[in-house]
Amino acid sequence: MNNLKKVAIDSLNERGITIDSMASIVYELQKEYNDITLEYCKDTVLSTLDKDEVINAVLTGIAIDKATEQHLFDPEINDIIIEDSKLYGIDEILALSIVNIYGSIALTNFGYLDKLKPHIIGEIDKLGKEKKRCNTFLDDIVAAIISAALSKIAHNNAQKEN
Amino acid sequence: MNNLKKVAIDSLNERGITIDSMASIVYELQKEYNDITLEYCKDTVLSTLDKDEVINAVLTGIAIDKATEQHLFDPEINDIIIEDSKLYGIDEILALSIVNIYGSIALTNFGYLDKLKPHIIGEIDKLGKEKKRCNTFLDDIVAAIISAALSKIAHNNAQKEN
Amino acid sequence: MNNLKKVAIDSLNERGITIDSMASIVYELQKEYNDITLEYCKDTVLSTLDKDEVINAVLTGIAIDKATEQHLFDPEINDIIIEDSKLYGIDEILALSIVNIYGSIALTNFGYLDKLKPHIIGEIDKLGKEKKRCNTFLDDIVAAIISAALSKIAHNNAQKEN
Amino acid sequence: MNNLKKVAIDSLNERGITIDSMASIVYELQKEYNDITLEYCKDTVLSTLDKDEVINAVLTGIAIDKATEQHLFDPEINDIIIEDSKLYGIDEILALSIVNIYGSIALTNFGYLDKLKPHIIGEIDKLGKEKKRCNTFLDDIVAAIISAALSKIAHNNAQKEN
Repeated sequence: MNNLKKVAIDSLNERGITIDSMASIVYELQKEYNDITLEYCKDTVLSTLDKDEVINAVLTGIAIDKATEQHLFDPEINDIIIEDSKLYGIDEILALSIVNIYGSIALTNFGYLDKLKPHIIGEIDKLGKEKKRCNTFLDDIVAAIISAALSKIAHNNAQKEN
Repeated sequence: MNNLKKVAIDSLNERGITIDSMASIVYELQKEYNDITLEYCKDTVLSTLDKDEVINAVLTGIAIDKATEQHLFDPEINDIIIEDSKLYGIDEILALSIVNIYGSIALTNFGYLDKLKPHIIGEIDKLGKEKKRCNTFLDDIVAAIISAALSKIAHNNAQKEN
Repeated sequence: MNNLKKVAIDSLNERGITIDSMASIVYELQKEYNDITLEYCKDTVLSTLDKDEVINAVLTGIAIDKATEQHLFDPEINDIIIEDSKLYGIDEILALSIVNIYGSIALTNFGYLDKLKPHIIGEIDKLGKEKKRCNTFLDDIVAAIISAALSKIAHNNAQKEN
Repeated sequence: MNNLKKVAIDSLNERGITIDSMASIVYELQKEYNDITLEYCKDTVLSTLDKDEVINAVLTGIAIDKATEQHLFDPEINDIIIEDSKLYGIDEILALSIVNIYGSIALTNFGYLDKLKPHIIGEIDKLGKEKKRCNTFLDDIVAAIISAALSKIAHNNAQKEN
């Protein structure tokens, strides 16, 4: 495995996000449409982390969250990132670097997950809102990886049918 | 009123979409967060149609839908557009020309609306899926205009609070 | 070869764009950075047409250009598309459905090519501006495919170095 | 003036970017198309900083550059950001949060400026490449603000003509 891919997975784990927790959301959202296994969802989530764009987004987003948590940025921007208001959209934009490369199915899934925040996405968002952690970027990155996996599964299925 | 803005509104009406039907979805999604009136939502929806990008997206999307309905395109692409499969994402992309200029709040709302398809969005999508009309581009454009209005209201409210 | 991929290549040919004409721009822009052959550039351009998003963008864009040429749309939007003014950005947006999935290297190359319009891109743009053809969407699609190939080559080279 | 707008302008100044240095690039790129003054370009550049998205992108990008310069992030991602390789595209993506809201004219100008890096954009990029500063995000943000101003001028001119 690419060394940076391993660093990205470790960073996600360290912030409370396992590959399994993302794969289970993928499975839940796909099982009604496709005859798939949790194992396949896990492999698909892992495969998104082969791409430079995904690794860079994960590492950068988590770096910003951690620096914000430790108040390493100038106070004005540090406060804005901790606050994570609806008007601060840089976290969603950074997640777009993942979402865009998986096309429009990823895009609509991302908007949906970012609004509903199911399971682990909601849990890390809540920890952030309670100021226990800064997860401003992490919840969007996790939603983006899940959206990417959902898109990949949809495109793979279509190719099998043809 | 700009002449092309009027043409865009007339085209939407002709395809079954009134400003009121979009404003009522905006109102429903916003009333729990903000003390707003339906009239204000209507004005905001109308104001999105001042922008060149929004007018061009409306006119182009409806032109594609109408030409598809009349089988004016080559059969391969005409069939793909009528089919409106999840793998055909050009309709979502065209809607992005509206969504992008209203920032990340518009983007997440768009993904959400495109997936849940409430009220008029669902109705035109259903007409399309039943092959009574080709609404492949229209439902995404309507979701995009509503998302744009939601974003504009959120930004306006934030400025009033400061 | 996927049948729709073949239709897309034939449609490009019919509008005056060969795989070779795109590959030669890729080669010219890359040869100073990489030790590559024209054949490799051609294979890379062809491989971008394996993706659903690229095929759909090619077929839709050319369908719009052809319908506009035959005045099949309502006059207001038909005139706007023929005119291809700087303010009509739907052609660039449609091309983004190709560019986005190839990441930020594709994006900056696209902006550059869309502004400078070298070789075949400039030739089809000129034919359109002289109203001999409607190439409003085609020039952006060709720039997008070339940008996608340039991005793919850059990422492949980076992986070889690691 | 909005307090955060002032902070954003001060942050740009502190990193070597004045409103004047951006306005002069806008003027140079526009003077052949429009009868405009440098003063008007300056006002337009300043007006882009009224938007939440632009302020947030400026403050976040500069915060990342400064933290990277001081080696405050984990070494893997800190090294990647300092390196500013073509494969690291998060800086371009962050700039897109500015570019997107100004539409397709901004987008193509951004790609062009990001590739050619005229004047102040090239100077800060060079300082970064020489490892005297970390300007990985700054050069893209400056290119994005200039692109936004160019798009605004183009749309304003079109409205005056109608």
